[in-house]
Amino acid sequence: MSSTAGLILTCKAAVAWEAGKPLIIQDVEVAPPKTMEVRIKIKYTSLCRTDLYFWESKTPLFPRIFGHEAAGVVESLGEGVSDLEVGDHVLPVFTGECGDCRHCRSDVSNMCDLLRINSVRGVMLADGQSRFSINGEPVNHFLGTSTFSEYTVVHSGCVAKINPLAPLDKVCILSCGVSTGLGATLNVAKPERGSSVAVFGLGAVGLAAAEGARIAGASRIIGVDRSSKRFEEAKKFGVTDFVNTSEHDRPIQEVIAEMTNGGVDRSVECTGNIDNMISAFECVHDGWGVAVLVGVPSKDAVFMTKPINVLNERTLKGTFFGNYKPRTDLPSVVDMYMNKQLELEKFITHRIPFSEINKAFEYMVKGEGLRCIISMED
Amino acid sequence: MSSTAGLILTCKAAVAWEAGKPLIIQDVEVAPPKTMEVRIKIKYTSLCRTDLYFWESKTPLFPRIFGHEAAGVVESLGEGVSDLEVGDHVLPVFTGECGDCRHCRSDVSNMCDLLRINSVRGVMLADGQSRFSINGEPVNHFLGTSTFSEYTVVHSGCVAKINPLAPLDKVCILSCGVSTGLGATLNVAKPERGSSVAVFGLGAVGLAAAEGARIAGASRIIGVDRSSKRFEEAKKFGVTDFVNTSEHDRPIQEVIAEMTNGGVDRSVECTGNIDNMISAFECVHDGWGVAVLVGVPSKDAVFMTKPINVLNERTLKGTFFGNYKPRTDLPSVVDMYMNKQLELEKFITHRIPFSEINKAFEYMVKGEGLRCIISMED
Ligand SMILES: NC(=O)c1ccc[n+]([C@@H]2O[C@H](COP(=O)([O-])OP(=O)(O)OC[C@H]3O[C@@H](n4cnc5c(N)ncnc54)[C@H](O)[C@@H]3O)[C@@H](O)[C@H]2O)c1
Ligand SMILES: NC(=O)c1ccc[n+]([C@@H]2O[C@H](COP(=O)([O-])OP(=O)(O)OC[C@H]3O[C@@H](n4cnc5c(N)ncnc54)[C@H](O)[C@@H]3O)[C@@H](O)[C@H]2O)c1
Ligand SMILES: [Zn+2]
Ligand SMILES: [Zn+2]
Ligand SMILES: [Zn+2]
Ligand SMILES: [Zn+2]
Repeated sequence: MSSTAGLILTCKAAVAWEAGKPLIIQDVEVAPPKTMEVRIKIKYTSLCRTDLYFWESKTPLFPRIFGHEAAGVVESLGEGVSDLEVGDHVLPVFTGECGDCRHCRSDVSNMCDLLRINSVRGVMLADGQSRFSINGEPVNHFLGTSTFSEYTVVHSGCVAKINPLAPLDKVCILSCGVSTGLGATLNVAKPERGSSVAVFGLGAVGLAAAEGARIAGASRIIGVDRSSKRFEEAKKFGVTDFVNTSEHDRPIQEVIAEMTNGGVDRSVECTGNIDNMISAFECVHDGWGVAVLVGVPSKDAVFMTKPINVLNERTLKGTFFGNYKPRTDLPSVVDMYMNKQLELEKFITHRIPFSEINKAFEYMVKGEGLRCIISMED
Repeated sequence: MSSTAGLILTCKAAVAWEAGKPLIIQDVEVAPPKTMEVRIKIKYTSLCRTDLYFWESKTPLFPRIFGHEAAGVVESLGEGVSDLEVGDHVLPVFTGECGDCRHCRSDVSNMCDLLRINSVRGVMLADGQSRFSINGEPVNHFLGTSTFSEYTVVHSGCVAKINPLAPLDKVCILSCGVSTGLGATLNVAKPERGSSVAVFGLGAVGLAAAEGARIAGASRIIGVDRSSKRFEEAKKFGVTDFVNTSEHDRPIQEVIAEMTNGGVDRSVECTGNIDNMISAFECVHDGWGVAVLVGVPSKDAVFMTKPINVLNERTLKGTFFGNYKPRTDLPSVVDMYMNKQLELEKFITHRIPFSEINKAFEYMVKGEGLRCIISMED
């Protein structure tokens, strides 16, 4: 039992009051965790494009505390939580694992019926209420994580307990973007040793997909992006070839087929652009090629292809959070880093104290760097 | 060595002189096999929709000898053929296996670079000439098989040597349609024991897909067709539920999702209709569902779906000849029949002598029955 268990805590949080306006660091009250919830002291958090997307969106859910990529330590437990203890090192995750539904019992799905991502809910599942308040007025949660706060309350099904020796200022980025790209390659595309892989989009997610291809032993990794400055960064990730989409006026699948004698063995789409999704599918080799979609498209985008492209024995798959089940699988991803199989340092291009959190938004808006680690204790 | 090896043989063949006009049974000369070819005495053949399709098409390839589903005995060998002997019982196949190309060396592809199906070629690969002639004028081959003839010449890479005890009047249907549907389920969709499978189109190919689902131990097999008379036939194949597309004015994927608490585990599309392809994809459950396309669509059809249907962890695959490699895999499919795992009798709804071959076309045009076995010796 920690000395603060059961108490309302007052701490600093970065509150978004209005779409697209700088966050304000201020005191918030954080209620104790209810049934099946835990309260976590956040140590490090980082900004992911999904935060930016919802921060810019004119939803009715302001004021809201964003943040979903983070690492911390369990401060206290709600009723019924039996697999976590105070002091555990954890990654809070925007999607969960109840352990009980058809998805959780499936070998392949991680789309838990109970705890699947929900971006329009600003409250906790247990009672439909927020655990955050300012002067008695509720502040909305975000993706069940709200890690831009010194303390946050999360459903225990969305909390991965990790190796206590893992440096939290690095493994925090495994709670979203990096695991998403890495798992898309390792769990879904599954390239064989010596194969060729095309990665569309060389942001953090795409470069994590490339890192997965490197780990799997792919001999050729083709990076596709519209910005050639991305390629310099990408070389550190084992990307061997670069295709700049803005330099071609014919379909990129044709360019790639030419470069690879008919197509790549695997592709992973990490831009969310619908034309890239189609190219990613059509650029894989007939007979055995597998394309994996990761990027999130605009609402009215439509995926279109001639059925013959499918009939010729190509496979199209989609993945969510790299098909990792957060509680079951994330501990072993952390261990991949601890065993030096997976390199995380190269994703971390900036570090700032919590007080300067708005800078992280500026870097991302400008497309500068990959991940900016925000330290809660500086 | 057979006594006829090396000689030009004169035999009966059913020659198509004009699109859509009855075949004429007449004498043709069949030249001896050239390098890597074999001459086969056809014992039984059956009509598949692909014959009908090209017989109806106004191509410049008439006169032509159709037929590609058959079983026979090797009469003589061309130079260089080392894995077949005179007297071997064989299935000629419309697609081949050179054993050497990237597809043949792949574990998953059967789309051989050299011997892949080619419907616009009327000649043999070795010399670009036909082995059939009438009064010195060449007659075109069809799919490299032309089994509507007492003797035919086939590339040895398109010939599967089978168990000599297998009854040729039954296993002949394994050389196209039945293997296509069966393999689509067993090799590609791979339903687990106890799972649910939707089969779109209850022709011979779709019912073979249903047979695959039965063999795999699926507990629920939903047949989808626009004709309810197909359902009676389908019950013999273990189809448990029927959806008549013409009785619903909303998308069939919604009907199926309702029947199955969110979607089937697997679907196999065997109509070739583009709307059914889309329904077949969207009716599989998110998280783990796999849809397999088999039916061949019209040239300008476009497959369209919202990317979220893919991102929610559905898989779309296509298959050609059930992913069977003809030489490597067909012998074991024949053995499945010999071991009574696979039931072929229920596909055979008609039997006729070669002299009445045009009746087989009539049955198919009317949609009567499944397979009509044509006996060359009666
Ligand atoms: N499925 C999931 O679980 C999951 C999780 C996190 C992120 N995502 C998605 O993954 C995608 C990538 O995320 P990120 O954080 O790496 O984003 P990012 O913005 O950092 O990187 C995207 C990259 O794609 C490039 N790009 C964008 N549009 C392009 C186009 N039309 N043509 C060529 N290149 C283009 C950009 O130049 C950039 O380098 C986003 O769509 C995000 O929503 C998915
Ligand atoms: N991929 C391959 O290797 C391969 C090999 C052989 C056949 N095929 C294809 O498989 C498909 C089926 O072949 P088959 O021999 O079983 O054909 P078939 O005509 O005997 O059966 C097709 C069935 O689908 C139903 N159907 C057709 N259009 C429909 C629609 N719009 N809605 C609902 N039901 C519909 C028909 O009523 C019929 O029962 C064809 O497209 C054929 O070209 C593919
Ligand atoms: Zn669950
Ligand atoms: Zn994220
Ligand atoms: Zn080959
Ligand atoms: Zn056929």
